[in-house]
Amino acid sequence: MGDAPGSAEDRLIARYFKPLAKDPRALGLTDDCAVMTPPAGYDLVLKTDAIVGGVHFLPDDPPETIGKKALRVNLSDLAAKGAVASGFLLVLALPAGFDEAWMEAFARGLGEDAEAFGAPLLGGDTVRTPGPVMVSISIFGTVPHGTMVTRMGAKIGDLVMVTGSIGDAVLGLKLLREPQLETSWGLVPNHRNHLVTRYRLPQPRNALAEATRAHASAAMDISDGLVGDLGKLCAASGVSADISVWDLPFSAAAQSALKSHPLLSEEMLTEGDDYEIVCTVPPSKLDAFRSAASTAGVPIAEIGRIVAGNAAPRFLDRDGRSLFFIRTSFSHF
Amino acid sequence: MGDAPGSAEDRLIARYFKPLAKDPRALGLTDDCAVMTPPAGYDLVLKTDAIVGGVHFLPDDPPETIGKKALRVNLSDLAAKGAVASGFLLVLALPAGFDEAWMEAFARGLGEDAEAFGAPLLGGDTVRTPGPVMVSISIFGTVPHGTMVTRMGAKIGDLVMVTGSIGDAVLGLKLLREPQLETSWGLVPNHRNHLVTRYRLPQPRNALAEATRAHASAAMDISDGLVGDLGKLCAASGVSADISVWDLPFSAAAQSALKSHPLLSEEMLTEGDDYEIVCTVPPSKLDAFRSAASTAGVPIAEIGRIVAGNAAPRFLDRDGRSLFFIRTSFSHF
Repeated sequence: MGDAPGSAEDRLIARYFKPLAKDPRALGLTDDCAVMTPPAGYDLVLKTDAIVGGVHFLPDDPPETIGKKALRVNLSDLAAKGAVASGFLLVLALPAGFDEAWMEAFARGLGEDAEAFGAPLLGGDTVRTPGPVMVSISIFGTVPHGTMVTRMGAKIGDLVMVTGSIGDAVLGLKLLREPQLETSWGLVPNHRNHLVTRYRLPQPRNALAEATRAHASAAMDISDGLVGDLGKLCAASGVSADISVWDLPFSAAAQSALKSHPLLSEEMLTEGDDYEIVCTVPPSKLDAFRSAASTAGVPIAEIGRIVAGNAAPRFLDRDGRSLFFIRTSFSHF
Repeated sequence: MGDAPGSAEDRLIARYFKPLAKDPRALGLTDDCAVMTPPAGYDLVLKTDAIVGGVHFLPDDPPETIGKKALRVNLSDLAAKGAVASGFLLVLALPAGFDEAWMEAFARGLGEDAEAFGAPLLGGDTVRTPGPVMVSISIFGTVPHGTMVTRMGAKIGDLVMVTGSIGDAVLGLKLLREPQLETSWGLVPNHRNHLVTRYRLPQPRNALAEATRAHASAAMDISDGLVGDLGKLCAASGVSADISVWDLPFSAAAQSALKSHPLLSEEMLTEGDDYEIVCTVPPSKLDAFRSAASTAGVPIAEIGRIVAGNAAPRFLDRDGRSLFFIRTSFSHF
């Protein structure tokens, strides 16, 4: 069968992906399918998300962060549902003449995160494309039966909480596209690097999954902007929300950019790539949730309250005026 | 939130994909994840396969067959593992300015097959791409615990069986790329249409899944050509095989092309897209397997026998000479 076992595709899989697939459910990537025995008493939580070169990452982003980002955007959904990651399937579409160094770094980054987040590679498909690199991941997690946190449980009076900070990634993307903004925004290099890293390497809040499951009445991850995503959560729950814009958690870097360019707040709240959790917590559970978040080392902020109604959530400034957003959400189409 | 609920992306999902996601596990596509309670006593069988425009299908293929093909190449793997399909996740990458009529037909084809094969849409992601259309599907099936058919169980003396017919799809692709071949191969229009349809619409053998699980010692689906794929099965089982080329099942259309161009057999056996099952069956189970296949309405053919050794399977002509293949398998790289 030729001068080496199998085809060039087989060798690519053996070289770069077999080392990531030591989990017995992956069968060493030598069979058609992976196979798993679901744990008794648990539900499986399923998600798929893809990232595309030139759309979700830039062609010259470091390949190790591309592999990590592809996995992290999926991990983030599991975290918001209160699920513990179990494993994933990978589709990697590569242009002709891909670079071995690129592949090596991509697989290394992916493998590091698979290990760090406890989600091994279980199977996959490598295909050629005349288009840009595309990474499509399907991830599986578990929750005790019947306990997945949905978008539907928010109740009037619940507090609206978000993890981490909002709007960094969109600023990081803008800086990568227009490097001169660093000067015009008056950023120090540390701040510039923080924002760029937040774009390339989301920090999925899987450490908060268990606390979210225990204490949140509804939750989702913020991938298309806080305004639109919170709007979806409220719509699914049949409620509205009043959000205090001055309570939103902004990083020091983002605050620095906002100081000179306050209008950036619109993009920061309505574009995507935050990969933070927004959730609603009944007042009776707030202390326990805060304490669990502190133990998990995940910063959380209280940003508002669920109210009656079916209008879009209001984002209120200090004078009680509701901000108007031209477009509430990132959309591909 | 604008003149219609949600973004253009939300409307696309609501219009084309919500009708395919009536299964309660899909949560109406309104949450971050799907959720399912795995049936007790069963294992989950997991697979992902993607198809790319210009690589796995032609840009002017009918959109309804593109949706069907994307699902069927995944269903085919489940069939070969003896698994019953349970549901799937979809990633659809679309170029800018996609056509509504295209989308409507794509989703209709996908929905028809999801219904026909009992595998509902459970979740997905639609993204924009500067490249061609790409459809990435992850599928889940079930088998009673511990009974998934692997590639590893073939034993010396087992019979090698294949379903359907081999080599049609590669001829269909050649006809689509070079229409004048129809005349040069001396095909009647019926034969031309048969071959093209076999390329665009594989016939996954899910009706034979249960029989494969009950009777086969090893199995896989043929996606990259019989020669290379059987070689993989034999390597995984630590055996070899002697195959009688004259026992291979060729369709009347393929036989007609082969009569004038015998060298086509090389491509028919070493290129891909058959999506038939090749499996090994102990002689003691052959009658039961044949009977189950007949009941399922799936044609099967006995093409050879597992033998000792670790050499690649031999494909023997009537004079006992072993055919030589320049390249044994389709490879993307």
